[in-house]
Amino acid sequence: MQRLGVTSETVHYDVVVGRGAWRALREFARSGYTSVFLLTERGLWNHWQEPFLRSSGLKTAQRVFVPSGEASKSLRMVEQVAGELLAQGADRRSLLVAFGGGVIGDLGGFVASTYMRGIDCVQVPTTVVAQVDSSIGGKTAVNVGAMKNLIGTFYPPRLVAADPVVLTTLDERAFRSGFFEVVKHAVLSGPRLFDEVECALDSLRPERAASLGPLLAHAASVKVDVVSRDEKEAGLRRVLNLGHTFGHALEEATGYRRFLHGEAVGWGLLGAVRLAELLGLMSPASSQKVVALIRRVGPLPSIGDLKAGRVLKLLPRDKKAVGGRIHWVLPERIGKVRIVADVPPAAVGAAFRDIQRADRHE
Amino acid sequence: MQRLGVTSETVHYDVVVGRGAWRALREFARSGYTSVFLLTERGLWNHWQEPFLRSSGLKTAQRVFVPSGEASKSLRMVEQVAGELLAQGADRRSLLVAFGGGVIGDLGGFVASTYMRGIDCVQVPTTVVAQVDSSIGGKTAVNVGAMKNLIGTFYPPRLVAADPVVLTTLDERAFRSGFFEVVKHAVLSGPRLFDEVECALDSLRPERAASLGPLLAHAASVKVDVVSRDEKEAGLRRVLNLGHTFGHALEEATGYRRFLHGEAVGWGLLGAVRLAELLGLMSPASSQKVVALIRRVGPLPSIGDLKAGRVLKLLPRDKKAVGGRIHWVLPERIGKVRIVADVPPAAVGAAFRDIQRADRHE
Repeated sequence: MQRLGVTSETVHYDVVVGRGAWRALREFARSGYTSVFLLTERGLWNHWQEPFLRSSGLKTAQRVFVPSGEASKSLRMVEQVAGELLAQGADRRSLLVAFGGGVIGDLGGFVASTYMRGIDCVQVPTTVVAQVDSSIGGKTAVNVGAMKNLIGTFYPPRLVAADPVVLTTLDERAFRSGFFEVVKHAVLSGPRLFDEVECALDSLRPERAASLGPLLAHAASVKVDVVSRDEKEAGLRRVLNLGHTFGHALEEATGYRRFLHGEAVGWGLLGAVRLAELLGLMSPASSQKVVALIRRVGPLPSIGDLKAGRVLKLLPRDKKAVGGRIHWVLPERIGKVRIVADVPPAAVGAAFRDIQRADRHE
Repeated sequence: MQRLGVTSETVHYDVVVGRGAWRALREFARSGYTSVFLLTERGLWNHWQEPFLRSSGLKTAQRVFVPSGEASKSLRMVEQVAGELLAQGADRRSLLVAFGGGVIGDLGGFVASTYMRGIDCVQVPTTVVAQVDSSIGGKTAVNVGAMKNLIGTFYPPRLVAADPVVLTTLDERAFRSGFFEVVKHAVLSGPRLFDEVECALDSLRPERAASLGPLLAHAASVKVDVVSRDEKEAGLRRVLNLGHTFGHALEEATGYRRFLHGEAVGWGLLGAVRLAELLGLMSPASSQKVVALIRRVGPLPSIGDLKAGRVLKLLPRDKKAVGGRIHWVLPERIGKVRIVADVPPAAVGAAFRDIQRADRHE
């Protein structure tokens, strides 16, 4: 079990990753809250409530359930959860514990940041992506119409407690998809984490998740380092967007139905690596190493049938684009990326068509 | 025209109050925004757009309109405004200018604090309460169901520009009701502002509003001082709740239909003063001075017919109550208040019945 520390503008908080991490809630929740509320979804909760309540000591916490799935990331659900918190007596000194994956974490964080103008929040992430990435750093959000994460806040949690044991009930596909984000962190961070992922490839199965604590902690530490230095995306934090530019466009082009988020990031990484290679930023040897690792993490749903023109048109709608430009995060080598604002559209198109072609020929 | 400065945790911003205040927007809006959006309501805007655009120089700003009235303070409206901002091309470096009273200010501030996780906001308050109170300090909120301000943020504006000329189109009742909040500020602040209000009593008419700049600036400075020292209601800021405990209960007991907010605060002040007197905190002479000033500011809708028991039951639902208790803000003299957490319910009931009785005998 590792305890990492995030220093944000306003608070310092711990990110505890590894077997037994839930015990960190014991000491924490005693620090003067009038009541504790658990936000979660029923299926997940039914499976994990017993060990979670035992480890965390939160037996008296009240529950608020939301349906699973992306549709819960809405202002309508914010309204519903806030109403239920109120009905159950939550006040300004209540604590909200978000027990779930990215949807619960983003929704719970947003509710916590706005309920009575802000109550404390603890994140208990239950998916790979949430454990190494989305639960850390305080970005919260809900969707508005087709626009993902249009409404949100920067609101640091008071604690993140990630126990890999909870990953053992994920299905194989959901489990593996999270490791494309781990590869992203490895490309950002350097050969050490990259090699760790390579060594763990044979263990990337849900039933072996409990043994992955050290790898997940290392991957989480990459996010911890970045957000500690740039909480609000003034600059550095944008490197975390690696793989997300193509990724978001692919998700949108397929109505968010074909890819799990991690899989879209997998494709996005392949596209970014190819683009970097085409621009002469990355050597073919480095690029090949990254491509090989992504391929070994797991299969990716096909992109061969997508109209390249349509996907490329969706790129500028990425909200990281300020004043219409796209800031590409492109790798130079494993452990070093660069942000490039003026990539020629022709190169972007060529990179995307190249990964499509490779996909068709597989 | 006076320029006051608020120092918040994260930013410093100016509060400009008086004739010509809108010109402060000229220099401000040029500082690097990709676009400027004006959030307002049609009736108000039709009347004031010409002088506002001339003074502020914001001729190219895009407009987003919302219906007037409290119903616009909802998450549904947040969704609608965010969607419209997106459709009109607002990005993370756009500026939102909230041109209106408390509803526009609270809604606009909340949208700004959450749109793409926060864009800059300027408040241009157009009612008395908004100019001296609600536009300053960064509290934003929307209502959820019957619960006022259940969802909100602390998000400081980058500038507040309050020109009293805009008050000249208020109707007499709306205009006067704002001055009950000015009396509240006077009780918090001391004899100087209290005497200024007394001297201005004959000018408290909309058509003379333009001359009230100095009084409004003085009243606004009380709020500026308090929020500079306590942005997030850790302690001191709660004094601003003076008059709001009874006030909120009265608004709720009457379904928010009988009283304008300022009028409810007027009654709330009378109740707080009476309660302070009953508890021996305030001398009858001081209390009488405050009562006389409130009475001269304007008529208050009757409370004589309300069931005291029902109003009193609504008190603990005030969300300032932590763990169920009510923190009463009670005056000791003009210029000094105290926060009292354990007021005997019998005294509260007696104070309320006393102001009801006085109302019936008028």
